[in-house]
Amino acid sequence: MTGQTAYQELEALFQKVHHFTHLSSMAYWDSATMMPPGGSKARGQALAEVSSLINDLVGSRKTGDLIEKAETARDGLSDWQQANLREMQRQHFNASSVNSELVRAHALASSRCENAWRELRMENNWKDFEPLLSEVIDLTREQAAIRSEASGLSPYDALLNLYEPGQSSSTIDTVFARLKAYLPDFVKQTVEQQKGEVLIRPSGSFPREKQRALALDLMKAVGFDFNHGRLDSSHHPFCGGVPEDVRITTRYTEDDFSESLMGVLHETGHAKYDQGLPGAWLSQPVGQPRGMGIHESQSLFQEMQVCRSHAFLSFAGPLMAAHLSNPETPNACWEADNLYRLYNHVQPDYIRVNADEASYPLHVILRYELEKDLVNGNLKVRDIPEAWDEKMQEYLGLSTRDNYRDGCMQDIHWTHGMFGYFPTYTLGAMNAAQLYHAARKAIPNLEEQISRGDFEALNHWQSQAIWSWGSYYSIDELMLQGTGETLNPDYFIHHLQQRFSPL
Amino acid sequence: MTGQTAYQELEALFQKVHHFTHLSSMAYWDSATMMPPGGSKARGQALAEVSSLINDLVGSRKTGDLIEKAETARDGLSDWQQANLREMQRQHFNASSVNSELVRAHALASSRCENAWRELRMENNWKDFEPLLSEVIDLTREQAAIRSEASGLSPYDALLNLYEPGQSSSTIDTVFARLKAYLPDFVKQTVEQQKGEVLIRPSGSFPREKQRALALDLMKAVGFDFNHGRLDSSHHPFCGGVPEDVRITTRYTEDDFSESLMGVLHETGHAKYDQGLPGAWLSQPVGQPRGMGIHESQSLFQEMQVCRSHAFLSFAGPLMAAHLSNPETPNACWEADNLYRLYNHVQPDYIRVNADEASYPLHVILRYELEKDLVNGNLKVRDIPEAWDEKMQEYLGLSTRDNYRDGCMQDIHWTHGMFGYFPTYTLGAMNAAQLYHAARKAIPNLEEQISRGDFEALNHWQSQAIWSWGSYYSIDELMLQGTGETLNPDYFIHHLQQRFSPL
Repeated sequence: MTGQTAYQELEALFQKVHHFTHLSSMAYWDSATMMPPGGSKARGQALAEVSSLINDLVGSRKTGDLIEKAETARDGLSDWQQANLREMQRQHFNASSVNSELVRAHALASSRCENAWRELRMENNWKDFEPLLSEVIDLTREQAAIRSEASGLSPYDALLNLYEPGQSSSTIDTVFARLKAYLPDFVKQTVEQQKGEVLIRPSGSFPREKQRALALDLMKAVGFDFNHGRLDSSHHPFCGGVPEDVRITTRYTEDDFSESLMGVLHETGHAKYDQGLPGAWLSQPVGQPRGMGIHESQSLFQEMQVCRSHAFLSFAGPLMAAHLSNPETPNACWEADNLYRLYNHVQPDYIRVNADEASYPLHVILRYELEKDLVNGNLKVRDIPEAWDEKMQEYLGLSTRDNYRDGCMQDIHWTHGMFGYFPTYTLGAMNAAQLYHAARKAIPNLEEQISRGDFEALNHWQSQAIWSWGSYYSIDELMLQGTGETLNPDYFIHHLQQRFSPL
Repeated sequence: MTGQTAYQELEALFQKVHHFTHLSSMAYWDSATMMPPGGSKARGQALAEVSSLINDLVGSRKTGDLIEKAETARDGLSDWQQANLREMQRQHFNASSVNSELVRAHALASSRCENAWRELRMENNWKDFEPLLSEVIDLTREQAAIRSEASGLSPYDALLNLYEPGQSSSTIDTVFARLKAYLPDFVKQTVEQQKGEVLIRPSGSFPREKQRALALDLMKAVGFDFNHGRLDSSHHPFCGGVPEDVRITTRYTEDDFSESLMGVLHETGHAKYDQGLPGAWLSQPVGQPRGMGIHESQSLFQEMQVCRSHAFLSFAGPLMAAHLSNPETPNACWEADNLYRLYNHVQPDYIRVNADEASYPLHVILRYELEKDLVNGNLKVRDIPEAWDEKMQEYLGLSTRDNYRDGCMQDIHWTHGMFGYFPTYTLGAMNAAQLYHAARKAIPNLEEQISRGDFEALNHWQSQAIWSWGSYYSIDELMLQGTGETLNPDYFIHHLQQRFSPL
């Protein structure tokens, strides 16, 4: 077999993987949005089966041999094919390090834990949740040890690299130390400074259907492609599905539309990245998103940089009024100045997904520190609630004692076996600030366009800067080509200072 | 390897197949209910991939060898294991006769044709539909020829056996000839006799949400398990999903609730069969439904035998009134006598799924005759509309000239590559009449129970007679153990005479 033939065989193999990933993604989406409770056991088994099949296909000895063979023909491959081969190699390494039985056991335990969590969180029931989470963490640690051995990275870094290829916890420690030094005081100052602000909160009841209609209008305005995606409801909002059919979800609270509204715009940012991936390469590793820090940068670009800006809120205000007005919402509450103050109000609170932009990184740092300790064995599952409470008190001045529901049981990630994922949220926030800075330089009247609801130039810029590259570049290269430099946290700090300076 | 070990390996293999079938069924359901149009190409490819994988697993040489080996230990297997092995053998034979490339091509062409059909039918566009259907039929004929060669059956019978193991078109020809001789005159007489009936038709608008709420109430009343299933909307109603999570669909017409109402109860009959399959054997071939004629007998048992009866309508009337009353619906229209006349009104019409019980078999016979000719090469795709029109005129006195939408483009089956399926509808109707006759003998006050909305004894009887047996028995054995005799069309003829005699 020639190296060229080997490469062609690899493309065919990864196309097959793409098809199975499609079924798996859709079945996962369904389990969170549509599935009746009685279906969860069978679903968990089916998801574990296909996850194990995908791991077998990507991680097989045969795939490894084909990659080795294809490497000999590297010079005859196009640039994109070479990048594709590099990504195949990375996926093969990740898949082959861990045997499929362990992958399967991990998927099964995660599915059990996640399904139980939906109920147990509602009941604030830590006691019954703890053993299920322990099982997931034991299997995660087993995986981490094996991946560490194979990669030469620390166990935690070996997991982190699944989501953020090429990043290390020592880099993150440095950046996070800076934020940890800066943010608690900044949060306090901002709270102090905002005390005098007059906020007109829209009150009354906002029926789900009206919130949904507004969300659909705004998704359409910013460029979500409804021919290749939809919006539904789930306990924990997420962006799922496949690039050809992106499924985003939200949850509605009838007495407060703001949670769902910004949540939808956030997931829309993720969705636009998926929908904008390079069409010719969707079935191949190089056509996939470039890590979760970049993915999160696109959701935060949408939510934080664009949709919480004064320009966007002056465009969205009238639409919000049209959908949500009721006798308890004076016209003044829909004015841009008021919405801007509302949507950029700093108030330390329990729930990460509802956190303001300034306290959010502190939620992430808390989780990052705890999960490093969990993976390294320095923290026992039974001690999570206490450790959580301590750090919440230290970083945000809040106690979560006996409040598991709004404390350590609020997120889906650990239940789902995802460790090493949380830091990507804050890497994303920093990437987003840097990217938006570059977009403003490239599009001189950007804010005026946004205030008119015209996102064409911006979407085009994002497509050229990020979306259309898939995994062609490394993370550093991608940021370099998109913004002219690699990650520089100054932009994020600067953005926060601007965002929270008085109007 | 011992025969016992081989059998155990086969169970593990078919469990894996069960998991992939789960993903495939759910993705199919999604494509009909949730998927945006732009997702259809990727979905078609993913469905074809898993269909080909399942075919490979079930049809592989290795599976054949394991079956042969397990046969040597047959005496050491339990009765259920022996029946399971027989069903494995049957599935292996069906899967191994046709190579996976052809299965894949057939699945892809079907997916393309079905997806296009959704639009083209709306547009009454036969011209663009014809080449897509031709492609499906060519690949179907190719399959039929190979299956015929392998089984020694005629090409059409080889396809029929995929849905109705052990049946032949010569038996069906005989039974259908009898119905064809009896029904056209019976339909005419009944139309004549019903002419003097006063029907009070509920008119006005019946919002989808109210129709849905009524449907959910009735599904619950007759025993649909919502912990293991749900109700949604699609172009063509169907019962899909998996036994652990049964998904039924309907379509709503706001000016006529009756179409959706009886459609939902029909699919509920299918669903209850799936939900009632033997729990311990769900992942194995012997735990699957016993052919489509029996499956259809359960939907028609629910719809025709139970829900269109006077007893049921006297129970359902008040519920219907509670959900659907409006200024244009006088109280008298919800009375059992009136509903009975409405729901048993004979009126030859174009659409099979809306047909009354007496003309329905004539719709089936038309399709059966055409599809036999299509498979045998005696009818060209381009001649379908003319042949359809001719037979409609002959059997039901209706012309479908230039009306493809309500003629040969009304059904999903052929677009989806299902040939040999249609006759099972009428086999089902006959089985249903025979089973209901047996149930009445077994439960003396059955109709009184139904009129009170009490379905416990009846569901228990159906479970014992049919559901809990899965594929343990052959079709003939199953009818014998459930009713005391094999299929006897007298019960169906007798049922029609009773049903359409004046109140």
